[in-house]
Amino acid sequence: MSGKYVYTFGDGKAEGQADMKLLLGGKGANLAEMSNLGIPVPAGFTISTEVCTQYYENNNAYADAVIEQVKAGVAHIEKIMGVTFGDTHNPLLVSVRSGAPASMPGMMDTVLNLGLNDDTVQGIIEQSGNPRFGWDSYRRFVQMYGDVVMGLKPESKEEEDPFEIIIEQVKEKRGVQLDTELTADDLKELVSLFKEEIKKRTGQDFPTDPWEQLWGAISAVFGSWNNPRAITYRKLNNIPADWGTAVNVMAMVYGNMGDDCATGVAFTRDPATGEKIFYGEFLVNAQGEDVVAGIRTPQPINDNTRRDPSEKTLQELMPEAYNDLVNVYQKLEAHYKDMQDIEFTIQKGKLWMLQTRTGKRTAAAAVRIAVEMFEEGLIDKETAVMRVEPEQLDQLLHPTFDPNADKKVIARGLPASPGAATGRIVFHADDAEEWAARGEDVILVRIETSPEDIGGMNVARGILTQRGGMTSHAAVVARGMGTCCVAGCSALVIDYKERTMTVDGTAYKEGDWISLDGSEGTVIEGKVPTVDPELSGNFGKLMSWADEIRTLNVRTNADTPHDSEVARQFGAEGIGLCRTEHMFFEGDRIKAVREMILADDEAGRRKALDKLLPYQRDDFYGIFKAMHDLPVTVRTLDPPLHEFLPHEEANQKEMAEEMGISVDEVKAKVEALHEFNPMLGHRGCRLGITYPEITEMQARAIMEAACKLTSEGVRVFPEIMIPLVGSKTELAHQKKVVKATAEKVMEETGVSVDYLVGTMIEIPRAALTANEIAEEAEFFSFGTNDLTQMTFGFSRDDAGTFLKIYDEKDILPDDPFQSLDQTGVGQLVEMGVRKGRSTKPDLKTGICGEHGGDPRSIEFCYRAGLNYVSCSPYRVPIARLAAAQAVLKNKK
Amino acid sequence: MSGKYVYTFGDGKAEGQADMKLLLGGKGANLAEMSNLGIPVPAGFTISTEVCTQYYENNNAYADAVIEQVKAGVAHIEKIMGVTFGDTHNPLLVSVRSGAPASMPGMMDTVLNLGLNDDTVQGIIEQSGNPRFGWDSYRRFVQMYGDVVMGLKPESKEEEDPFEIIIEQVKEKRGVQLDTELTADDLKELVSLFKEEIKKRTGQDFPTDPWEQLWGAISAVFGSWNNPRAITYRKLNNIPADWGTAVNVMAMVYGNMGDDCATGVAFTRDPATGEKIFYGEFLVNAQGEDVVAGIRTPQPINDNTRRDPSEKTLQELMPEAYNDLVNVYQKLEAHYKDMQDIEFTIQKGKLWMLQTRTGKRTAAAAVRIAVEMFEEGLIDKETAVMRVEPEQLDQLLHPTFDPNADKKVIARGLPASPGAATGRIVFHADDAEEWAARGEDVILVRIETSPEDIGGMNVARGILTQRGGMTSHAAVVARGMGTCCVAGCSALVIDYKERTMTVDGTAYKEGDWISLDGSEGTVIEGKVPTVDPELSGNFGKLMSWADEIRTLNVRTNADTPHDSEVARQFGAEGIGLCRTEHMFFEGDRIKAVREMILADDEAGRRKALDKLLPYQRDDFYGIFKAMHDLPVTVRTLDPPLHEFLPHEEANQKEMAEEMGISVDEVKAKVEALHEFNPMLGHRGCRLGITYPEITEMQARAIMEAACKLTSEGVRVFPEIMIPLVGSKTELAHQKKVVKATAEKVMEETGVSVDYLVGTMIEIPRAALTANEIAEEAEFFSFGTNDLTQMTFGFSRDDAGTFLKIYDEKDILPDDPFQSLDQTGVGQLVEMGVRKGRSTKPDLKTGICGEHGGDPRSIEFCYRAGLNYVSCSPYRVPIARLAAAQAVLKNKK
Repeated sequence: MSGKYVYTFGDGKAEGQADMKLLLGGKGANLAEMSNLGIPVPAGFTISTEVCTQYYENNNAYADAVIEQVKAGVAHIEKIMGVTFGDTHNPLLVSVRSGAPASMPGMMDTVLNLGLNDDTVQGIIEQSGNPRFGWDSYRRFVQMYGDVVMGLKPESKEEEDPFEIIIEQVKEKRGVQLDTELTADDLKELVSLFKEEIKKRTGQDFPTDPWEQLWGAISAVFGSWNNPRAITYRKLNNIPADWGTAVNVMAMVYGNMGDDCATGVAFTRDPATGEKIFYGEFLVNAQGEDVVAGIRTPQPINDNTRRDPSEKTLQELMPEAYNDLVNVYQKLEAHYKDMQDIEFTIQKGKLWMLQTRTGKRTAAAAVRIAVEMFEEGLIDKETAVMRVEPEQLDQLLHPTFDPNADKKVIARGLPASPGAATGRIVFHADDAEEWAARGEDVILVRIETSPEDIGGMNVARGILTQRGGMTSHAAVVARGMGTCCVAGCSALVIDYKERTMTVDGTAYKEGDWISLDGSEGTVIEGKVPTVDPELSGNFGKLMSWADEIRTLNVRTNADTPHDSEVARQFGAEGIGLCRTEHMFFEGDRIKAVREMILADDEAGRRKALDKLLPYQRDDFYGIFKAMHDLPVTVRTLDPPLHEFLPHEEANQKEMAEEMGISVDEVKAKVEALHEFNPMLGHRGCRLGITYPEITEMQARAIMEAACKLTSEGVRVFPEIMIPLVGSKTELAHQKKVVKATAEKVMEETGVSVDYLVGTMIEIPRAALTANEIAEEAEFFSFGTNDLTQMTFGFSRDDAGTFLKIYDEKDILPDDPFQSLDQTGVGQLVEMGVRKGRSTKPDLKTGICGEHGGDPRSIEFCYRAGLNYVSCSPYRVPIARLAAAQAVLKNKK
Repeated sequence: MSGKYVYTFGDGKAEGQADMKLLLGGKGANLAEMSNLGIPVPAGFTISTEVCTQYYENNNAYADAVIEQVKAGVAHIEKIMGVTFGDTHNPLLVSVRSGAPASMPGMMDTVLNLGLNDDTVQGIIEQSGNPRFGWDSYRRFVQMYGDVVMGLKPESKEEEDPFEIIIEQVKEKRGVQLDTELTADDLKELVSLFKEEIKKRTGQDFPTDPWEQLWGAISAVFGSWNNPRAITYRKLNNIPADWGTAVNVMAMVYGNMGDDCATGVAFTRDPATGEKIFYGEFLVNAQGEDVVAGIRTPQPINDNTRRDPSEKTLQELMPEAYNDLVNVYQKLEAHYKDMQDIEFTIQKGKLWMLQTRTGKRTAAAAVRIAVEMFEEGLIDKETAVMRVEPEQLDQLLHPTFDPNADKKVIARGLPASPGAATGRIVFHADDAEEWAARGEDVILVRIETSPEDIGGMNVARGILTQRGGMTSHAAVVARGMGTCCVAGCSALVIDYKERTMTVDGTAYKEGDWISLDGSEGTVIEGKVPTVDPELSGNFGKLMSWADEIRTLNVRTNADTPHDSEVARQFGAEGIGLCRTEHMFFEGDRIKAVREMILADDEAGRRKALDKLLPYQRDDFYGIFKAMHDLPVTVRTLDPPLHEFLPHEEANQKEMAEEMGISVDEVKAKVEALHEFNPMLGHRGCRLGITYPEITEMQARAIMEAACKLTSEGVRVFPEIMIPLVGSKTELAHQKKVVKATAEKVMEETGVSVDYLVGTMIEIPRAALTANEIAEEAEFFSFGTNDLTQMTFGFSRDDAGTFLKIYDEKDILPDDPFQSLDQTGVGQLVEMGVRKGRSTKPDLKTGICGEHGGDPRSIEFCYRAGLNYVSCSPYRVPIARLAAAQAVLKNKK
């Protein structure tokens, strides 16, 4: 604790700066930085995040020092802006905004126009010469303060805001339709009606003392750090709850004082494509919230995004202010060396900057901006590589609509977030979650979205809104998620009650299929086939830089030649996990597998295995060929045998007929193989030890395929992997079987092949005794799926029931099946590597669980000293980038 | 390698001594020791165990040095005995015997009378003046050598020894019945017939060269180290395979040269009772093998065990030799300070000692001998405590069958829980309860048991199951209860519908009497009288000495006041594990439990829990009272809820009727609670976190009982234990619920009780993150059952199938559910203690898995620094003794 809690800014200097985000929040730190850069920012101050923590620890009270420093902060604003807080002639009005270290758009509360009361409103009217403006500001303030600070905002979306009801009543009484048609007197009446409503509902008078107002607003903002949406958002985005938010108090400037006023938002490059154009939207005579809320459709600031020649751009309407804005944006991008998302207000022709931050962008834009900024000499390669979130690449690796498919476009909106999506219409976020939970693909269709819809947006394949621009809530959030979004599609008529969406007289009901093209902004009837993505030149460049930097190899999990080829195109450097059990189900093979299971003795099993051998050999031949010159890790049979038998009566009958035995025999076998906990049962190497002939057949199939390819001049590197090993003796047993078979095959064929025999480390005991196991193993591959199951004692098939509750009750920071639990499971991985290498210093180690494609887990694997990660084909580029970033993050 | 392979002895001195057992084997070391003590031992030499290892490593060949030293050894014997190997007038004959570092009685091979051929037999006849003796010795030698060295001994017991067939033929031809009726000529004929048979079967001539004979016999003994019985015996007795055996070559002495010759075995104290009497048997004119073989009935050596006045004792027949023997046995016992098992031969009136070793004894004898030797001043207390195998005590703690009763054993299963029980067959737990309630003794016979059967198991005298191993539900629960149990008796065919149990075609009906011997695993027809254990004064003395030495506390696992009292009598110092789930099954409670499970919401669950509260409170009241002044660890609910619902159609119907709901509702709930791997599912603290009201009810019941007793002046120390914790946050959540409830109860009652909240460490992750968990825990209790399951990835319920094969294929040294796997699971225990204490230096730690009663595991717990072990009541004395031995074994 420094004893300093309040940091002022304005008039070309500031007490804070950009790198103080943890203390001042993103908004506060950047306001200070802009101020330091001489960019016009209304004077203000930031109350640090430390005060937020204290606020919660001290039962919502403030230290004397905080109170003193806030007072001094207000005096600082008064001095610079030449106004006085509470003055009846020239009053200071302020905005009070949240600002956390990480961006949490729309999640917390804001109060504008603070400082107004029946006296100071006269001062505002005096200063602006505009009574309607004065009363409108006052009306907005009472409404906002009533909602946010005094708690009148309805908890659920179904209830209407009580203030909006009053506005509707007054409008009806006046016989007008629009807010703008209300007169100064109407607005004055609203202020008094609002205050009555507040008194009625809370029993409290609306505070008239500006200082009381100020502390109420500050506390409301701190309090909003722990509102349910904020908590949900933090959870989704892995933002620590103990960071807290800062509070920014800043002199009000007005974009709604008249037609020489405006307010807008802009990006220094196109956030959808990454193109180097200045890009933004604005509204004349409006407050900032009007732009984001999507009530009026904003105009483009310049020709870059003008859709219609009738639209007036800011450049045309206010060329001077526009030029100032251009200077500011160029300065900001050059200074921050990254694409900025900025907010501005023009008050009576003068430009004020209210915010700058790193702009959210699509994956395509992220890649293009990173590569182009490097080529412009703005950043170096390493920075470029760090600029793209690996997880985001997912957007680029997935299919788009087949350009040749027939498409019946039924409406056009804004291309708010790229991608292609097909799904069934739902109209409520809750429904989206419910439908998605049962496996449906859904498109969430809303008039507009709000932060409460976040859960439904998260699970939707695509989002379609009737209102709102490229920077509307729906658009910003969808881009962040990489979810396809078409916004502002005004041709839609949405009826939430009837659950219909009507376009040109055609009604689409809940459950109907539609498709969205988020790159074009089109809405298409029915389902549309998709085609594979084309990986652009910028993507290739970025990937090649990542490859230069990374030290971890990236392999893939693939069981077929096709998957192997896809993965190779994505840059896979081998197969880290080729499961063999999937191969047992195809066509006639399952019959032979069942024959083996039913056999009474080794001879019977061998007879059945002989039938499987040629199939398996062909499988491996195809995969080794596709992966020529690269290593292929093949895992011997893993699942319990009962998985190959039918469990339903009808299928059992069918099997009995096919095999020429009685249903009772089938049932008896199923019964005999039944296990209470199959996950911990007779599977993995336990099978191979019980029935060595299975391992023998598989080793033979692998080696025969490898020898054949070798004799054909194809280089193959088979790595035979024994699953579920918990002690050295298990591996030794299976290795002996494999080696003996391999030697025999090589002798028979006269061909020599380099091959390895290693093991999965997926049982806690294997990690604990890795030094012993390494005596037998030629490589380790960490099977973190099973390792996580056993280390936590969680059955992945069953954990859903309680992991949901764990998530609600904050028991675990992450789902350990999604991101490797570094604290617990990670210790076993590190131990496995360390102990294994204590026996064999150059032991090859990798990971082949789901975690191999998770960026955070990949960074862990890098630190743990693994040689490679292996993941599904579509995640290979993500892993390559994450592996490069792991090197860079751990450089110091 | 010392380069010395052969160690001579005889004539009052020796190159070896008693503490060289690892090198010379037990027999060789003790022969050397006796020689050093001046006790008459035929001259001889020992080939060390190192040679055995070399023999296997060098493909059954010997180093030159070994060959040289054996030659010198033979010369040493010749010199002392005044005879010459191969001499036709005064030949040296030798015995060649195995002798491993640990006793493996009868497992390996022996050759006697070696050195005989058609020439040297004449020398023997010349020396003894007894042609029949000469030819009989020769006949015996050819037969033994043919069997052992030349491989004529049949592999299976079913086949007859080919030499015995020939003897029978000759006896028939001669018209005689006994071997002793055969004349010298008959025996001569046998020698020649034997040789012919050998030639016929092996194609080889019988070797006539004594040296060839000698090397053949030595190799046969080394080879017998790896015969199947020896391997099995080592496995059962945990004898390392790489120890090897030594070979003892010794001059023959004869107890069968005439009526002034004899041979016998003796114990320096009674091996059955431990009484201090010299005790033994002998045969006049016989070789040693005749005594052990049981062909002729041996006579008592003295009056101590004379059954019949007509019997002639050695003391009467050969008083001088007997006196020599008395001197020798006294010298030996005083020297070895332990009860000795000795073998002697009297040749023409002269006493020769052939062997001395520590005598095997019953548990009762072990205790008595240890205590009396201390009282005689022969050994100190610590030695006395080390003299009794803790595991052996089990024999003293349970009722046993009258050893003189007639018993018809009808089947054999696993000795799952020791003791003896007689009762009437019932097949259902409900019936057991009903029958027991009207005073019947019942044996509960089940295919396998489940938690629903707990009530019936509790009242049964014994439990018999068809399926399941030593760690099956039936076995574990029965051991916990101290109830006799025979498990996995696969010969049974149980028909629940007909209420019959069929064995080998004989059907036993409900109500029929059977008896179980849980120590032997036998099922006996009808009633067998039992005798209660007498815990003699010696037992109490030994236990008190163990208590003086041990530092580990010993607690018990007990769920009822009765069990608590039993354990207390056995010396338990508290309860280490009181499971609460068993309490949920009794009487009406199960109805309330099911009502809770079926409830749709918290209010419904609370209503049902309110009904359970008074029962639980009474349970704890009884247990705390029984355990006054001692700590009681109560574990909150652990098993998955589906265990409380019926799984069979009929029971589901019954439940539906009782609860007034439809069967479909019951089925739907059972279905909803079904899990793929319940072991890793919704259980333990995961339940308490999902339904905190359950934990709350249990905490309330515990604290209400504790407060009530405190106000009654009884001192109670409840320790509330949260199961299945894997992360600190889980424990923190549950601890908060417990603490809040406890505070409330103490406030309500106005009574203050010292209580602790701690956790099981039974999930690998808990051990890995023990430093974090210790921040919340006031104690740790290692639940090594589950910890073993998860560390190995073995489901205890399913592992039977492959653990059997693992045992056959030597994959694991021990069943890890019986004896703690120190290499793997042990690391987690040590880590848990170390990390836990790094946070809380004086953290109390204990173990409450089955391993808490296993002596080897207890020693491990001592070394790991645990504060206590907890085991089933009947194992408490075993644990006390093992804990004392752990201190002594780790003293250096």
